[in-house]
Amino acid sequence: MPVNERFLEKAEKLKRELLHRSVTAESDGRELNSGDEVIFDFGNHYVGYVSCELIPSGHHQDAPLYLQFQFAEIREELDSDYSDYNGWISKSWIQDERVHVDILPTVLHLERRYAFRYVKIRVLAASDNYSVRIPRMTADTISSADYGNVTYPALSETDRRIDEIALRTLHSCMQDVFEDGPKRDRRLWLGDLRLEALANYETFRNYDLVRRCLYLFAGSTLEHGRLASNVFTAPEVECDYQSMFDYALFFINVLWDYYQATGDKETLEDLESVCLRQHELLKECFGSDGLLDMEKAGMVFVDWNFELDKQAAGQAIYIYALNDLIRIEKALNRSVSELKGELADRKQAALKLFDRESGLFVSGEKKQISVASQVWMILAEVLPVEEGRDVIRKINEHPEAVKLNSPYAYHHLVQAMINVGLKDEAHDLIQEYWGGMAARGSNTFWEIYNPENPEESPYGGLVVHSFCHAWSCTPAYFYRKYFNE
Amino acid sequence: MPVNERFLEKAEKLKRELLHRSVTAESDGRELNSGDEVIFDFGNHYVGYVSCELIPSGHHQDAPLYLQFQFAEIREELDSDYSDYNGWISKSWIQDERVHVDILPTVLHLERRYAFRYVKIRVLAASDNYSVRIPRMTADTISSADYGNVTYPALSETDRRIDEIALRTLHSCMQDVFEDGPKRDRRLWLGDLRLEALANYETFRNYDLVRRCLYLFAGSTLEHGRLASNVFTAPEVECDYQSMFDYALFFINVLWDYYQATGDKETLEDLESVCLRQHELLKECFGSDGLLDMEKAGMVFVDWNFELDKQAAGQAIYIYALNDLIRIEKALNRSVSELKGELADRKQAALKLFDRESGLFVSGEKKQISVASQVWMILAEVLPVEEGRDVIRKINEHPEAVKLNSPYAYHHLVQAMINVGLKDEAHDLIQEYWGGMAARGSNTFWEIYNPENPEESPYGGLVVHSFCHAWSCTPAYFYRKYFNE
Repeated sequence: MPVNERFLEKAEKLKRELLHRSVTAESDGRELNSGDEVIFDFGNHYVGYVSCELIPSGHHQDAPLYLQFQFAEIREELDSDYSDYNGWISKSWIQDERVHVDILPTVLHLERRYAFRYVKIRVLAASDNYSVRIPRMTADTISSADYGNVTYPALSETDRRIDEIALRTLHSCMQDVFEDGPKRDRRLWLGDLRLEALANYETFRNYDLVRRCLYLFAGSTLEHGRLASNVFTAPEVECDYQSMFDYALFFINVLWDYYQATGDKETLEDLESVCLRQHELLKECFGSDGLLDMEKAGMVFVDWNFELDKQAAGQAIYIYALNDLIRIEKALNRSVSELKGELADRKQAALKLFDRESGLFVSGEKKQISVASQVWMILAEVLPVEEGRDVIRKINEHPEAVKLNSPYAYHHLVQAMINVGLKDEAHDLIQEYWGGMAARGSNTFWEIYNPENPEESPYGGLVVHSFCHAWSCTPAYFYRKYFNE
Repeated sequence: MPVNERFLEKAEKLKRELLHRSVTAESDGRELNSGDEVIFDFGNHYVGYVSCELIPSGHHQDAPLYLQFQFAEIREELDSDYSDYNGWISKSWIQDERVHVDILPTVLHLERRYAFRYVKIRVLAASDNYSVRIPRMTADTISSADYGNVTYPALSETDRRIDEIALRTLHSCMQDVFEDGPKRDRRLWLGDLRLEALANYETFRNYDLVRRCLYLFAGSTLEHGRLASNVFTAPEVECDYQSMFDYALFFINVLWDYYQATGDKETLEDLESVCLRQHELLKECFGSDGLLDMEKAGMVFVDWNFELDKQAAGQAIYIYALNDLIRIEKALNRSVSELKGELADRKQAALKLFDRESGLFVSGEKKQISVASQVWMILAEVLPVEEGRDVIRKINEHPEAVKLNSPYAYHHLVQAMINVGLKDEAHDLIQEYWGGMAARGSNTFWEIYNPENPEESPYGGLVVHSFCHAWSCTPAYFYRKYFNE
């Protein structure tokens, strides 16, 4: 696959030492025998490496100690029977270790990195001649997010709690790259990066990390310079084989947002070509009617929803990216007349999807009505603000409309509502949706949350869910950007 | 517990670097996915540390690789269902590891030491996007036994094979101490040491290792200087809380054998007091009839057999040790008249257990007839040689007699037969008993072997058996000491 060494070197140079903090959790210190277990509660969500002192009592240890460690982001995970899980996401993501300890006492260091608030240790086997005590666990926790850079707006107690959880979510996801989730996939995805970067500018302000991630995507691409949906960084930087129409376009928006936040023109100039390449490749995905040809577009994400028809949202996302591409080109003093002409054509075509009767956008051959289609058409500024506000109001009158599934999609609804002047309603939605997760006692926001069915899983089991997922961190962005009186 | 620092320092100084040898096993190198497994056959029994190269193919690894490693001394172990095992020996001895590998390719090093010929690796979970190949495993194998010191007697093919397996058994058990078995318990037991030392003098000739083990026992004892049946060496030297009447006495025999092999009078003088202390403590275990009081004697091992009445064998073992104690005292120019008087009394009492009618020794209140009782009375030289020979012949006419269960007990039968001049019959027995294990394709001799029921387990399951157990290594001793024409 094509590699741009210069870009990858820049990404490597932008790598920083992570911030470490040692955290300890205590147990009641009782003596454990075969079959016994103890749960450590670290009190908050952490990412890092754990160790624990194992103290024997009774006679000399005359057989290895066999321990199981289960790491959980939320308490419910500890009660899952792992053997039940047979979904399509690999079981290997389950944070479950088994370790034999030959010599006691010892301080046991587990090698892998985990994402957790709770750790359950179970004695799978010992012998009758000795017991073991585990009075405490210590975690060497890591992040590239510095709370010292965060300023706190005046907020109600409900909002303050939501903000705290949102910050924690982003904090745990900010490592060597912006990860989607530190439990799973621990990986840099373009769609997730866009929201994390926005929240980061308002909170932890680690601008180099965004820049590093931009260069990672630019440094390893698919054929013809097409951006992959995500990039691996170990053992070497290599992009995934999969690309998504919307995620590739979002590179343009991430770069423009980054320039807005930093004024870093050097990076803007350096990565302009990557944006132009995506545009050049993806402008071929439209039919003679000016609408997105889903065969040509390939995979379009929009939301974790297989039922959703993604033509309308895809059309809108293209326009959304084109808007920022024009801004980039203007900032670099390029001519934008051609791009503006194309923008007008795409918007014109998009309006063909607007159903005058219902006052809503429809998508695909079956003219599906969905929340996502309305949201993205608003974000793409296809309609005047007043008409966009009507669209938001009208969609609520259509209970048959395909709903949103993920915090990622809800972010875009909140943003769309703000954009059309429904700020109070947007605020209410944050309190209702993210507040719903907060009410469940979680310290971080989740990958998937359906208030009507919190057990819903696109993976076939909660045990592989990411309960700290970056794309749900944006209340911290909204509070500071829009609700900071 | 009492510690003799001077003795422990000597033991520590006698610790040597282990000999290392790198060994490799190849696989067919095919691509493995979830649920697939591959078996590596190292071709012989080894003790050491393993590593393997894990080579991914397909798309980039997008989920951890979750592997299970099963180590087996004999092929049958790999087919055992571990979850079935619920015996009284800890499950933690089962050589079964589960490892998550986050980054491929890699060379994976497992940290623990294993005893094995076979290693099965099973892919517990991966993802559909990649496969893994494991073309080979490498073992850093260790032993304190040097084949370079071994001389080989002229032997028939059958005997040569038995000798090779016996040598391998001892080789694998010779580590920082003489271990009972390198899979389980990996520990220095006095009864096992005695036989290992005898075989070692005739083969690998690592005299310092025997000396080190003597000092370990002498350096950490129970109250009043009573020797424990076994000693732990990690994290610190500490003897077990259990003692056995026969094992404590055997210290005397191990020291005398060592002196016979080395002429090391310094060590004989240094450790004489330990022998005298055992004698002083254990001579109190006899009743007014001069016979062993089993209440006072406590645990007596003799064989892995709960059915066996151990009074007669215990009486004989005491006499057997007293014989060598007198030799030690003579070598150190001490007066032995008192010991000789006691010896005569103990032998006299032992003869009360000789049943004139059957011509056999009986044991306990129920006058139990067992092979072990006869064997030990012969080894204790309670009877003249000719009468001993009759005893061996007569015991075969008693199918109801309690039989021997372990190679440890069979060793003593072979020795007894040789002592009473039944050398050919002893040779036949070696070929029959140890040859039976050899015929089952094992590279090492076992902890337990009952030719009539090879599946017999005192532990409730074969999976925790030690299939390389030092106390079965003595054919290598017999061949060189008695069958080397």
